[in-house]
This record gives sequence, C-alpha cells and structure tokens, in this order.
Amino acid sequence: MLSRKANKDSHGQDSSYFEGWQEYEKNPYHPIQNPTGIIQMGLAENQLSFDLLEYWLRRNSNTMALLKKDGVSAFRELALFQDYHGLPALKDALVKFMTRMRGNKTKYTSDKLVLTAGATAANEILMFCLADPGHAFILPTPYYPGFDRDLKWRTGVEIVPMHCSSSNGFRITREALEEAYQLGQELNLNIKGVLVTNPSNPLGTTMTKTELIHLLDFAIDKNIHIVSDEIYSATVFDSSSPTTTPFISIMEVVKERNNNNLNNIRERVHMVYSLSKDLGVPGFRVGMIYSNNEMVVAAATKMSSFALVSSQTQFLLSNLLSDAKFTEKYMEENQRRLKRRKEMLVRGLRNAGIGCLRSNAGLFCWVDMRHLMRSDSFEAEKELWKRILCEVGLNISAGSSCHCSQPGWFRICFANISEDTLQLAMQRMKAFTNSIFSSANHIIYNM
Amino acid sequence: MLSRKANKDSHGQDSSYFEGWQEYEKNPYHPIQNPTGIIQMGLAENQLSFDLLEYWLRRNSNTMALLKKDGVSAFRELALFQDYHGLPALKDALVKFMTRMRGNKTKYTSDKLVLTAGATAANEILMFCLADPGHAFILPTPYYPGFDRDLKWRTGVEIVPMHCSSSNGFRITREALEEAYQLGQELNLNIKGVLVTNPSNPLGTTMTKTELIHLLDFAIDKNIHIVSDEIYSATVFDSSSPTTTPFISIMEVVKERNNNNLNNIRERVHMVYSLSKDLGVPGFRVGMIYSNNEMVVAAATKMSSFALVSSQTQFLLSNLLSDAKFTEKYMEENQRRLKRRKEMLVRGLRNAGIGCLRSNAGLFCWVDMRHLMRSDSFEAEKELWKRILCEVGLNISAGSSCHCSQPGWFRICFANISEDTLQLAMQRMKAFTNSIFSSANHIIYNM
Ligand SMILES: Cc1ncc(COP(=O)(O)O)c(C=O)c1O
Ligand SMILES: Cc1ncc(COP(=O)(O)O)c(C=O)c1O
Repeated sequence: MLSRKANKDSHGQDSSYFEGWQEYEKNPYHPIQNPTGIIQMGLAENQLSFDLLEYWLRRNSNTMALLKKDGVSAFRELALFQDYHGLPALKDALVKFMTRMRGNKTKYTSDKLVLTAGATAANEILMFCLADPGHAFILPTPYYPGFDRDLKWRTGVEIVPMHCSSSNGFRITREALEEAYQLGQELNLNIKGVLVTNPSNPLGTTMTKTELIHLLDFAIDKNIHIVSDEIYSATVFDSSSPTTTPFISIMEVVKERNNNNLNNIRERVHMVYSLSKDLGVPGFRVGMIYSNNEMVVAAATKMSSFALVSSQTQFLLSNLLSDAKFTEKYMEENQRRLKRRKEMLVRGLRNAGIGCLRSNAGLFCWVDMRHLMRSDSFEAEKELWKRILCEVGLNISAGSSCHCSQPGWFRICFANISEDTLQLAMQRMKAFTNSIFSSANHIIYNM
Repeated sequence: MLSRKANKDSHGQDSSYFEGWQEYEKNPYHPIQNPTGIIQMGLAENQLSFDLLEYWLRRNSNTMALLKKDGVSAFRELALFQDYHGLPALKDALVKFMTRMRGNKTKYTSDKLVLTAGATAANEILMFCLADPGHAFILPTPYYPGFDRDLKWRTGVEIVPMHCSSSNGFRITREALEEAYQLGQELNLNIKGVLVTNPSNPLGTTMTKTELIHLLDFAIDKNIHIVSDEIYSATVFDSSSPTTTPFISIMEVVKERNNNNLNNIRERVHMVYSLSKDLGVPGFRVGMIYSNNEMVVAAATKMSSFALVSSQTQFLLSNLLSDAKFTEKYMEENQRRLKRRKEMLVRGLRNAGIGCLRSNAGLFCWVDMRHLMRSDSFEAEKELWKRILCEVGLNISAGSSCHCSQPGWFRICFANISEDTLQLAMQRMKAFTNSIFSSANHIIYNM
C-alpha cells in the first residue's frame, strides 16, 4: 500500500554506521556511572566551544528571550516570517562570515544564497534541481554515509563512486574521475556532476589546488556540475605549515577561471554549507546553498519551502554572527581547541602503534588499522570494528560504511567527548593493540 | 542542464494567487503613510492573539533566553539535539494539546507523531510515503493553492480534482468521490487516496459527520488512503449552534469504525497538523504527521531529516504548550476574537450586498460574488478580481486559484489585519458594489 520509497532501505539506517550507535545507546560510557561503557567516537559533533556560545547568549539574553530588535519586540514579525528568501540580516551575516572564513579572497553575496534546514536538506534540494531520477553524481570515496540517503532516496538520483586510495593519500586524480565517468557510462547512467566534501568527511583533509583544478577541468570537459559541500570549512585548524594545504573553496578556484568562463562552468558550480559543524549547532538546522546559477537559486529557493529555518533561530543566529568580533574570536579559539584535540588523538593512536592520514581539518581522523586485521578484507574490517566496539568499548566508524574501497581504515571523532574520555579511549586502544601484538598467532602483514 | 523539476512551473508561483501578492507589495495599505494602498486580504494568517503569546513570553523570558531546563542551561543539549524523533517534551505537549482541541474524544499518543518543518513538509512527506510518481490523490475543490506545489512538484504525484458545488454548500458527496475516481481511471492514474482539509481552506467550514463517513466508506471500498489536513482545527469558533457542525477529526470517525477495522482502514488514515494557523506562528515551522500506520511513521520519521524543526523552537513551544492553563485560555480567547472578526466581515459584506458561505472556522470567508460578474465565466471572475485588486484596493483570492469549478467565488481573509482596516475594506467594497448596482449596463444575473 505504501510507495516504493517508503518501502525501500536506501536511507542507510541499517549500515554498520548505525549499528554501532545502537550498541552505544545500550551501554554508554559515563566516568562515574558506567566507566566501562562504550565511548562514542562515531559522532562528528563539535562540542569544544559551547562555553563561548553560552557566554555570548548570557550577554545577549534580553534580546534573545523577548526577540527584541532595536529595543522593541520583534515577536510578531518573526512569528509570521516565513519568506523563503530568508531573514536579510541572517543572510548578510552569513555571507560576511563565509567571506571571512575563506580569507576574504572571494566575495559572497546574499542574492546567491538559499537557506535550508541543514546541509542535509541543501544537498537533497541541489539533487532535485540538477538531476532527474536515474541520473547520477560521481562521489569520491570514502564519503559521508548520510549521502546515500540524502542524495538518492527521494530524488531517485544514483551515486557513482570514484575510488580514492591510500597510495596517494586519498587524493582526487583526473584518472580516477575519468574512470568513474566511464563506469557511469557502462551502467548507462547520465552523469550530471561530481559532489565533493571539502574539507573532507571522513578524511579530515582540505583539497589541494591541484585537485580542485583537476575537478574543475573535468567538469568543464564533460559539461557537468560540481557540488562542493564545505560544511567543515571553519574547522580548518592547520593551514600555515608547509606540509598542509590551506582551505580553498571551489568558489575561489572558479573565480580565477572566470575570466574565461569556459563552457559556462561558473553556472555549474554550487556550494553547500551549514552551521552544524563550524558552530556546533546541528539542532538549530541552519544550512544553505550558494550558487552562481540564477535558475538554481530560483528553483532551490522555491524548494526551500519544504525545509525552512525557524525564524526564531534565524533571529538568534543573525544576532550572533553579525557580532563580528565575537565570531572572529570564536573561530580562532575553536580552531585552536580542535587542533589540540586532534594532536591528542594522533599521539594517543601512535602510542598504540596506529597511524593516521595527515589531516588539518574536521572533527575526526582517518585512521589506518590495516596492520591489526586478520586479512586484507572487508570481513576482517568488520570483525576488527566489532572487537573495537564490544571488547575495547569504542564506537568508531568503519571505512566500509563510508564506501572506502580499501579495507582497514576507520574514522575516529575527537570533538564530541571530553579530554579525559579521549585519554581513556587511547589507553583502551593501547591495551588492545598490546594484546594483539603480543599474541603469537596474529599476522602483522602490513605495518 | 537542470532537472525537469527545476525547469517546471508546477510550484504554482505564477498563479493569480501570487500575482495579487506582488501588486500588494508595490502599493501596500498603511493608515497614515498610504491610506489608499492595497489592503492585504489574501493571507491566511492569524494575527489576532499575539498579545497573549507576548505576555507568556515576557513571563518566561529567563527560561527562554538562556534555554534553561530546571534552572540549568539546556543550551548544549539543544544545540546538539537533531534526533528525528523530536523533543519528547514537545511531542507530549502536542498530543495533549491535540486531544484537548478535539474535545478529548480520541486520545493521541506521541509514538504516532512525526515532527516536520511545517504542514508544507508534512504533506509532501506523506505523498512521498504513500504514492509513487504518476500515482494520484483525489482532492475536493476548492482547495488550498499551495497543494499544487506541495503534493506534486518533487514527488511526481498527480492531483485529481473532485468538484464540489455551491448547490449543496460545497459538501463532499459519495457521487462526487466516485466521479473523481472514474476520472482518474480514465486518465490511467493509480488513485492512492483522498486528501481533505478539515476545517476547509478556503471554505472555512468543518466537515459533517455524514461527509466524513462517506469519505471513510469510499476509502474502505477502494482500498485507498485518507490524508486529513487539520491545520485549522483550533480555529473552530462556532460549534455549538444547531446550524453549525462541531469539528470532528478523521481520527475520531475511524476510531468509531475501529471495532471492525474494515479492510484495514485504520492503517490508511493519516493526519497533518501544524501550529502555523492555530497559534499564528508560521515562521517557527512546526508541523507534524500523525498516523496509525507504523510503517508510515517509520518512513516519515526518516524523511523528516530533510525538514527538522529547530531544537530551539521545539524547546520554546514545548514550554508554551505544556502550560495547559495558558493554552486553554489562549484558544478560548483566540476563538472568541476570530468569531468577532468573521461576523464583522460577514456584516460588512452583507451591507455591500454580498453573501458568504455559512462558516464556523478558519481565518477567511468563502464569498459569493457571482452577481457582480459580467458573465458566468472564469474570464469574468478574473476581471472582477483585477478590479477589486486595482480599483477597490483589496487583495483577495479568486476561486479559480483554488481550482473551484464554479466561477464567482472568492476567499477573503479577516485575521491578518486590524479591525479598522477591515472596516475600511468593507467601506470600499460597499462603494464598489454601489457603483456597480447603479450602473445601468450591469446585468445582475444571479442575486
Ligand atoms: C559532509 C556532510 N554533509 C552534510 C552533513 C549534514 O549536516 P546538517 O546537520 O547541516 O544537515 C554532514 C553531517 O555530518 C556532513 O558530514
Ligand atoms: C490547508 C493548508 N495546509 C498547509 C498549509 C501550510 O502550512 P505550514 O505553514 O504549516 O507549512 C496551509 C497554509 O496556508 C494550509 O492552508
């Protein structure tokens, strides 16, 4: 009696990504009440800087409580405000914030911005705008597991994976792009674009200029779209050292090429953003699409009727973000804290004999545990993941849930727990690897 | 380069419904700054009781500003809260509120409720769950113009209009249902259900028990779904007089039939609700689906990821709605005010020689202006509508924009303007009809 979509499982809830979460729910770690419980390291949440937001909230409580604007109640106005063009003050604050976060190299303007209830809705709306059912987007693997639901489920769009490998640090190459395109053609799919996440979830890395140019050239050649999900753009905590790449938005690269708007590429580049990660407020559901394409902006604006941001929340965040001094400080401090945490995780893992992909952004590390597996297979990965979940008591994400094509990689989140809990997690890992390394029958085939 | 959906016009923005709104934007009435401007009577907004909400907000400002729960900050918890099951406190308050609003005749439980960003998202999600592209729903006309966008655009679902007529007060009959079903079959459409709005927008009437039973029997016979959009359920301002029908929810009728759950009808009845009208807070985007069907609840919950309600707003409204004494008073007073307004509009129109369909709910009247038209046609309706917009200076909605099959009916809203403005609008109408009635060449063919 129900629709195929309602009956279908492509929302991804049953992947191991969710399985671990369920185990955690049954036995969650607590320092006093449940010290042997499972530690949640599978959530890409940013809990490091709530004290700063709370401080701002306390200082602005009167405005926020009574929804005051210039001293008078804005309650009526806000209660009624459901214009899908969004609160001008919020859009203005957002484009300024985005411009600042991208080093003032590209100027963002609010007429190209569409507000949506989270990046989740933004990504789906873009698919509805750019592709018809049966059309496809190329996604570099490993990718955010939520995309299987967000991009495909209700839109009928297909994902063609583009396999990245550890051999070059999971970088995007022109060859891999061509291969994916080829695969799509063999499957008789009309490839409408490439969707990337920059900085990457789950890699925690920013895309290099070279990667971005490969991507752009590819999209110019094939006459297809680029969607860049830049939800982690303000988490870049390391961009100055010579070995790390600073964050470069797709919008910056396309602007450089804009003098010769080859094959109208400018109108085929779209960005997704959200405050869920950078500000740590996923509960507030503030996301957006940014596009140079007027028709996409127009269609997405109309579609945003299905995913409008609460005007109360628009009001709160327009006040907060337009406090430029506060946001500047917040971002600086937040990045400092993220960096400290990430280094703590990397050290702890190294101490347990485990390496990570070198990263400079995000709320997680991409961790190499190939040497801890019984064999080079996804079965072994799953087995190791289950042991880490049940024996070690850590809920982390297996690479396979991110469609990684090489077994043995895991995503570990570091910003959703306390430092003490992180240290405990690392002790547990060390004890675990010690027991493995000392066990005679374990074959270390890849160290 | 874009999708068919992005290129398509089925979002309905270009109907006359929106045209009038644009004219209004150019020349909006203001008592001092623009006393000859257009008066907006095309918006189904409830602005009558903001003072009560503001009063509550002032008394609870400390809790709301600092997002306090039991005296401690709930900010962190809320900032992170994006569970698509919704805030238990809000769902609990909502089901109690809904139970009370429906005279405690049916008990609503929160496990059957799915929160969505407005009824707009709720209606679309239900279509995604119940129908595949190319399937159809029957809708009694006249209906809310937004449905053309909400039900059809992204889902690919079709609407089969079921024509109601003034001859029986636009009531739903078994014959009309069968006729629509027949039409669907002739068009080779797989009819998946009937969607009704009760109380009706644009009629302002509640469905009678007889209509509800016809509807239910029809759905049992044809083995199809019923969706009841009850977004105006707490606006019912007249339910006691012998000539008016009290509001009866579809859930109540189905419960009575439940002893013999004929053809599993219980699992095919779904309700949509929202706080946009009853509480007058469309900007806050709080809607919901209520269904007896576990699979629909499960699928809709997952789909609600694309349309989650801000946790900050969930918190505000859970506090407000769980104040039972306040909501009780609010609803009583709000209904009293709506009734007063409606009577003011009916009197004003009668004074101008214009009649209305007898109504007892909603934020509008369904107005009969057939006698003011040059001919019994939609061209004449459009002509009259344009004159009222441009000469009289009132933006009202033409019946054709609600897919009414009889020309000459208009929806006039009464709760989005002040009493003074309403009186002025009626004076303008009277002057207009006077000029028509006294003009020799006007043929009054239907008085
Ligand atoms: C790459 C990416 N895109 C989108 C999302 C969804 O974000 P939002 O909370 O804004 O919907 C996430 C959340 O984990 C993500 O990692
Ligand atoms: C019958 C009906 N359904 C749904 C809606 C949309 O309501 P919401 O603001 O909750 O999305 C409206 C608004 O006018 C309506 O009249």
